[in-house]
Amino acid sequence: MRLGRVKTPDGIKPVAYDMNGALRDLSSHIADISTTVIAPDKLAELAQIDISGLPEITGTAAPFLADVRRIFCIGLNYYDHAKEMGMAIPEHPILFVKACEATGATDPIVLPKGSEKTDWELELGVLIGSRAHHVSEDKALDHVAGYFMANDVSERHYQMELGGQWVKGKSADSFAPVGPYFVTKDAISDPQNLKMSLEVNGETMQNGSTATMIFNVPQIIAHVSRFITLHPGDLFLTGTPPGVGSGKSPQRYLKAGDVVTAKIEDLGEMRHEVEAFAG
Amino acid sequence: MRLGRVKTPDGIKPVAYDMNGALRDLSSHIADISTTVIAPDKLAELAQIDISGLPEITGTAAPFLADVRRIFCIGLNYYDHAKEMGMAIPEHPILFVKACEATGATDPIVLPKGSEKTDWELELGVLIGSRAHHVSEDKALDHVAGYFMANDVSERHYQMELGGQWVKGKSADSFAPVGPYFVTKDAISDPQNLKMSLEVNGETMQNGSTATMIFNVPQIIAHVSRFITLHPGDLFLTGTPPGVGSGKSPQRYLKAGDVVTAKIEDLGEMRHEVEAFAG
Repeated sequence: MRLGRVKTPDGIKPVAYDMNGALRDLSSHIADISTTVIAPDKLAELAQIDISGLPEITGTAAPFLADVRRIFCIGLNYYDHAKEMGMAIPEHPILFVKACEATGATDPIVLPKGSEKTDWELELGVLIGSRAHHVSEDKALDHVAGYFMANDVSERHYQMELGGQWVKGKSADSFAPVGPYFVTKDAISDPQNLKMSLEVNGETMQNGSTATMIFNVPQIIAHVSRFITLHPGDLFLTGTPPGVGSGKSPQRYLKAGDVVTAKIEDLGEMRHEVEAFAG
Repeated sequence: MRLGRVKTPDGIKPVAYDMNGALRDLSSHIADISTTVIAPDKLAELAQIDISGLPEITGTAAPFLADVRRIFCIGLNYYDHAKEMGMAIPEHPILFVKACEATGATDPIVLPKGSEKTDWELELGVLIGSRAHHVSEDKALDHVAGYFMANDVSERHYQMELGGQWVKGKSADSFAPVGPYFVTKDAISDPQNLKMSLEVNGETMQNGSTATMIFNVPQIIAHVSRFITLHPGDLFLTGTPPGVGSGKSPQRYLKAGDVVTAKIEDLGEMRHEVEAFAG
């Protein structure tokens, strides 16, 4: 199943994307896509619905989950990206938090006031569906509700030059766009073999595959669950492949008017217009 | 006003602490202490109530706010603590996030499974009461609802030796106990001149004053609001004075059975029994 939420004139509606990409209104079955419906048994109930019988609706993509809990991110998690940045392969997953709200797959990316180094990071996202604490790698995927795509938008000056901890550069409003939907775990045969690419104004910037991740999804979940109890609605952004702006020579950052498009195999597409801060 | 919440046989109740420290039940006026009641105008309404006419109740301290949004922390923010750790004075506030829930002023501190380096950090806390983005230092306190005490409990191995970003060591369950109440801003004449002390099993470990903070509360709020939009219910833990266990020679960490007591002038007291992880 591909489950998401769309903004409509009548408010946000829960939807399933059908085989043709049409949006089927789930409102008659559930009030919203929230942490109460991503538990394994609830997703199994939803899977029983014949969505071809549900009304088609249209709308603008909202974040696929109403009540995202925390956004955890893994840094430097691709062999080829670590190489591009001239950084050593991490011994352990590098964990940090994005402290902003998730936004939709076509919402604008707003440059922070005065920002000169806003960068993109296309990432595979993982949606946690059930509580996990000290889980083993072989049980870790039991706690995954599904996968999605995300952009870990990053301001490099704020991230790297103002104190060492990364959260300052990761948490501006609009810096956590997520895919139009999440795909339930059963529908992704191998999350570690998905092609991914990102373009700015039509020019390919990132082109990679989740196959070059250093720590795979089970390893990430098992590791982090030693330190932090994971809960339904937690998201993991699992790191970015090569091609970020700060890794290019010369470095290249987003400017107002740019259009960022991205896709990950089986997980859909995102399109973001970049806007100057207007507040 | 000193506002908090207590666990009672009838559920959690909102309370005001009176001059004698007795708890006055606010249930007849508000359903809970939540972000809807910490806005400046709502606090002004609450201040009109003659609490001496309200019923006295008893209960165990719960976190003073029902819907804590995010817990932001400032690292190495005391001149004397930076010196004790042999670390340079930061050029900018070091910002990180605690990704766990706040707990009550007498709830146990539970050692993470296998933890050998769980440490204490008594801190002045700041409760954000209204949205703040790019605020100036001279307007920063307009966004503060009040002050409280907190312990930024930290596992030093997880924090320092597993990847460089601190969140792993800051976010175990029970690692964010907060004071029995928060004190509204009007009732604290100078947040930068409060004595603070922490004892383990009756032995004084930390003994300091918010007067030796490197970045004061307005500077912290102004700085962080450049990068992250602050919202009601966000907490800031503003750093710890000297005397943490990892700064002692030999280093000293918490073990099951220890009792941690702490106080900050005008902000109350906390008492935590340290427990082993019990699965």
